[in-house]
Amino acid sequence: MGDRSEKGSGKHKRRTTIAGDAVRAHQVKRGGAETLRGQVKEKEQRHETPANKHNNHRDAGDDAFSCHKLQESLLSSNSGYSNYRGVLNWCVVMLVLSNARLVLENLIKYGVLVDPIQIISLFLKDPYSWPALCLIIVSNVFIMAALYIERKLSVGSISEGTGTFLHCINLAALLFVPAGTVLILTSITPVGGVLALSVFTILFLKLYSYRDVNKWCREIRHAKARTLSRSHSCPSVHKANGTTGYTHVIYPANLTHRDIYYFIFVPTLCYELNFPRSPRIRKRFLLRRLLEMVFLMQLILGLIQQVSPPLLPVPLQVPNHFIWLIFFYWYFHSSMNFVAELMQFGDREFYRDWWNSETIPYFWSNWNIPVHKWCLRHFYKPMLVKGVNKLGAQLAVFFLSAFFHEYLVSVPLKMFRLWAFLGMMAQIPLAYFVGRFLRGNYGNAAVWMSLIIGQPIAVLMYVHDYYVLHYESAAENTAA
Amino acid sequence: MGDRSEKGSGKHKRRTTIAGDAVRAHQVKRGGAETLRGQVKEKEQRHETPANKHNNHRDAGDDAFSCHKLQESLLSSNSGYSNYRGVLNWCVVMLVLSNARLVLENLIKYGVLVDPIQIISLFLKDPYSWPALCLIIVSNVFIMAALYIERKLSVGSISEGTGTFLHCINLAALLFVPAGTVLILTSITPVGGVLALSVFTILFLKLYSYRDVNKWCREIRHAKARTLSRSHSCPSVHKANGTTGYTHVIYPANLTHRDIYYFIFVPTLCYELNFPRSPRIRKRFLLRRLLEMVFLMQLILGLIQQVSPPLLPVPLQVPNHFIWLIFFYWYFHSSMNFVAELMQFGDREFYRDWWNSETIPYFWSNWNIPVHKWCLRHFYKPMLVKGVNKLGAQLAVFFLSAFFHEYLVSVPLKMFRLWAFLGMMAQIPLAYFVGRFLRGNYGNAAVWMSLIIGQPIAVLMYVHDYYVLHYESAAENTAA
Repeated sequence: MGDRSEKGSGKHKRRTTIAGDAVRAHQVKRGGAETLRGQVKEKEQRHETPANKHNNHRDAGDDAFSCHKLQESLLSSNSGYSNYRGVLNWCVVMLVLSNARLVLENLIKYGVLVDPIQIISLFLKDPYSWPALCLIIVSNVFIMAALYIERKLSVGSISEGTGTFLHCINLAALLFVPAGTVLILTSITPVGGVLALSVFTILFLKLYSYRDVNKWCREIRHAKARTLSRSHSCPSVHKANGTTGYTHVIYPANLTHRDIYYFIFVPTLCYELNFPRSPRIRKRFLLRRLLEMVFLMQLILGLIQQVSPPLLPVPLQVPNHFIWLIFFYWYFHSSMNFVAELMQFGDREFYRDWWNSETIPYFWSNWNIPVHKWCLRHFYKPMLVKGVNKLGAQLAVFFLSAFFHEYLVSVPLKMFRLWAFLGMMAQIPLAYFVGRFLRGNYGNAAVWMSLIIGQPIAVLMYVHDYYVLHYESAAENTAA
Repeated sequence: MGDRSEKGSGKHKRRTTIAGDAVRAHQVKRGGAETLRGQVKEKEQRHETPANKHNNHRDAGDDAFSCHKLQESLLSSNSGYSNYRGVLNWCVVMLVLSNARLVLENLIKYGVLVDPIQIISLFLKDPYSWPALCLIIVSNVFIMAALYIERKLSVGSISEGTGTFLHCINLAALLFVPAGTVLILTSITPVGGVLALSVFTILFLKLYSYRDVNKWCREIRHAKARTLSRSHSCPSVHKANGTTGYTHVIYPANLTHRDIYYFIFVPTLCYELNFPRSPRIRKRFLLRRLLEMVFLMQLILGLIQQVSPPLLPVPLQVPNHFIWLIFFYWYFHSSMNFVAELMQFGDREFYRDWWNSETIPYFWSNWNIPVHKWCLRHFYKPMLVKGVNKLGAQLAVFFLSAFFHEYLVSVPLKMFRLWAFLGMMAQIPLAYFVGRFLRGNYGNAAVWMSLIIGQPIAVLMYVHDYYVLHYESAAENTAA
């Protein structure tokens, strides 16, 4: 009677909540989970006696007053319940309240320490921040180059080989020109350097995608021309495209300045001829995102000043983690949605539910969807097509990601320490360990732990090395 | 083209997550929510042109490379997404990490300040804590009284009127005897007093339910006897009740010592003749709950010592809120599940998803299900039957709850200040305000704010008054 039911295949039905989500029972996934109903169901199947049937039609007599039923508590891991929107709101409320206190305490202790206007004026007046801006303005040259190469290719005035060669030069220049400038110019600040290099990295990924998609379009055009298909002889522009009323663009018609600049400013790295468009700009949505951007930027700057170098011995983990979380929301939700709303860009999937990650790879493929999508479309899948096996392609993606992490950190700081690169590569054994030994909520906790503890260690390494390099040598110089 | 779509009836489909929940789109509920798809759908319905249809069958040419689709970000309130189990895990990880730091810092600063053994020995050796224990032992008399009254009633040796009268005396004694004892005996500590009164209050509610259900059973028996139904002439005990293999008990057979004590120890306030039973005791589940109980008890005691009176000026809100949250989990999840598992009690719904409350009444009717169920079954519904209107009955429930809150606080502290009573009654205008002006996530944030800020104020009131009363008068006495 008391034997162990290993299946736990019971499906729990919970009343719909006020937020009203339908809950899926995911006991099936969890091998040995034992649930109350699972046990009971098995038992019922084994003991299908007349008394059992009687039970299903008990006399209304004393069971009319029945007010209990067999069920698990919501917080039990095998209840299958997962609607914790309220917990997210709790985090936001706690963040606001605790920072209100922090700001108040700071005001009482030090007066106005966190001065946002000072920071902005520092960026605008400081002559050192101009080179970064100049670099960003210069980037237009590369955009134009990509467009004109594609135009030449579309009319066939240069061969595919020449086109590929020119694109390679253009893309290589996109990485090396800013890196060289940042390394050579002593007047550029680390912050300016990071900003400039980020812009150029984004441009690199975008123009790579631009070139790929246009090449695919040409290939299809050739294939169609070969099969003498006449379907493309109809006008290339259709009025009133269903989704939005925008014109539907077909290959060579997309090679315009307007089109490429729309792609450059839109928050995605994957080029497409006809992006899904939202029908109108929702002003309240825009305003809310703008307020979030302004408020969270203040908060991030305030928190950074709090953990700034004079206070370095304070354990960096928790504030650093908070800064990362707020930065995530600021960049991937507020800012990207703001830009997308402004440009009526329809696809707002900038992140998925990485907070539920139970494995390391799930986290990496869901927290930054633009980059993940680009890697999948322009790096991973083409590699598979070329015959590389899956594991090799996955490792290559990690290697590429590690390279860019290092590029964005080492060059502006002018220190080649490989901490970022090693940090990324360390994800591979970590992923193996977590995937092998931990699952469910324990796996999720492990992913959080790696974020809370792992990431600040890498940051601390760079901060430490940077200060040793710049301030200790400065101290030695003044001493000598 | 750009006019406002007020319906927002679009239904978003999201890919199933790793935790794999099915997501319901709850835009329908939110009046003015504007969603991207909602807008588009409306537009499509209005512009059902041939061009539109063409769009549905676009040439595979350039749209084979399409990798974007119209969708909202998950964190947007109108995405309908609500799986944040990972955020809950994050909170737990942060709690563990931050408390590890707290414990470490304390150890470095003060040595072992939080000494759990000392607290336990204080409770056991202190002669002042015995009266509370004696009171709890005496409570058995009332349980026996209720059982014997019911036995007499079942065989008809006393009339219903006499039975009701005896029960009333018994129940009244359950409230007044411990209150009187606590007020008269100067040797009883506030903590002992709260414990004793809680036990008696729980007994009061349980025995009230016991009497009600047995009365209903007699009424049905009489009704059946009158209609000459012979369905009850069959034996009252059936073997192999379907759910668990336990015997199915019918009215007079339930009036045993074993049955009433099972009900007394089981974590519910509503009596039922045949509780749903879990088929076996899951030892791993039991052990995990036990470890949680021990660890969280330590944590609660440690946190209470942290905010203990000598450190009173520290803002109490946040630690008090944490203590409440941990207490909630400790009492309603760990302890109740532990007891239920031990007694093979099947219904583990001790709380519902109050963390998602968007209104104050939703919170009050979902955070404490045993009490909520009791109020509904034995107070609210009988009042409706007696012809009281709904609002009146709801206010009466709040009034009853306010009375018991006051009873449990004022009597042990021997201070009649009405803060708890007023705190409960203040929920009514607050509920009106939140329900009227705030909804969705804003409503949820308001509920959290009222918990974070409101509750500690009431606690602070009592703590303040208690110290003024006891320590200032003591100081005056020594001065005089």
